[in-house]
Amino acid sequence: MKYPSGIKLNTTKTISYDNRGMDLEEDINITNQYYLEKGIAFIYKKPTPIQVTKVTYSKRKAIIKEAYFKEPSTTDYNGLYKGLYIDFEAKETNSATSFPLSNIHKHQIVHIKNIYENKGIAFIIVRFNKLHKTYLLFAKDLLSFIKNNMRKSIPVEYFMEKAYLLEEKYIPRIDYLKIIDQIGGCYEKE
Amino acid sequence: MKYPSGIKLNTTKTISYDNRGMDLEEDINITNQYYLEKGIAFIYKKPTPIQVTKVTYSKRKAIIKEAYFKEPSTTDYNGLYKGLYIDFEAKETNSATSFPLSNIHKHQIVHIKNIYENKGIAFIIVRFNKLHKTYLLFAKDLLSFIKNNMRKSIPVEYFMEKAYLLEEKYIPRIDYLKIIDQIGGCYEKE
Repeated sequence: MKYPSGIKLNTTKTISYDNRGMDLEEDINITNQYYLEKGIAFIYKKPTPIQVTKVTYSKRKAIIKEAYFKEPSTTDYNGLYKGLYIDFEAKETNSATSFPLSNIHKHQIVHIKNIYENKGIAFIIVRFNKLHKTYLLFAKDLLSFIKNNMRKSIPVEYFMEKAYLLEEKYIPRIDYLKIIDQIGGCYEKE
Repeated sequence: MKYPSGIKLNTTKTISYDNRGMDLEEDINITNQYYLEKGIAFIYKKPTPIQVTKVTYSKRKAIIKEAYFKEPSTTDYNGLYKGLYIDFEAKETNSATSFPLSNIHKHQIVHIKNIYENKGIAFIIVRFNKLHKTYLLFAKDLLSFIKNNMRKSIPVEYFMEKAYLLEEKYIPRIDYLKIIDQIGGCYEKE
């Protein structure tokens, strides 16, 4: 979310299928919208948590006059696919060589671990902008890397070896459920 | 959420175990916090969706200066319990005789139906304040009532017959997962 200082935003945003490859979050929202419309899966982005401190009323309508962004306590996306609990975070990076782990908050790693250990399907989707490649890395492989490495970023080679490449299609934009199907919707916890 | 006009709110809220029976949402948050701390389940309330229209920056910190509450597109609570997708809405009513269905938005009913049909566990928790009784009504029974009745509210007798009574305990405050365990974590879709 990028809000310049003091500028009033256009509050309406039309979701179309035209903004191809422009924004990972947009691509995922389009994909989720497709899954929803087709009745395939029910996966939603969690609203940004906001602490409201001042509200006024104008013509019986509430207007928030002061509020602060809070840090999310979990990952951004979750939902249901054929009885499976799906949970993931999506990040872009401009690095061509590695994904900085600072992109994911510590408590989000803890959350991903909790989901993984409780038979949910957790993963991260990472887009390497310069490489035009988008990967799905499952919790098991993300957690394994963190456990076994001191370094603060995951090299792209690790994604090439362990992650699943998400092909860029028109609709659905980022077909991550196809990967879930490929792994059979289940996995062994070590 | 109740915000009087123009009054600045105390922004910090301490969750303690002392506010017994005062507020259903509070009781559920305490219960979820308990489940989380014990590693039993990972169920969260979705943040209220807010449309931000003006942001300013003060000392590099973003302050929202204008925003509007949006209607949630799904239910308030969801998460994971032993591999099961859990999804529910919680409502209180001051009626001693029935639960008005206007308390649940039409698209939330659709959402509950979607979850039920896709092997998630969906339900509503309804507290009858005057009766000091809190019930858990599963999606199947909620949807069945709506399908077979023209009336706009569910009589308390229906809850007594079809719903599960949640006993009031100290911790966890509203042990809804105990009900999930009782029904064996599965159910037949008609």
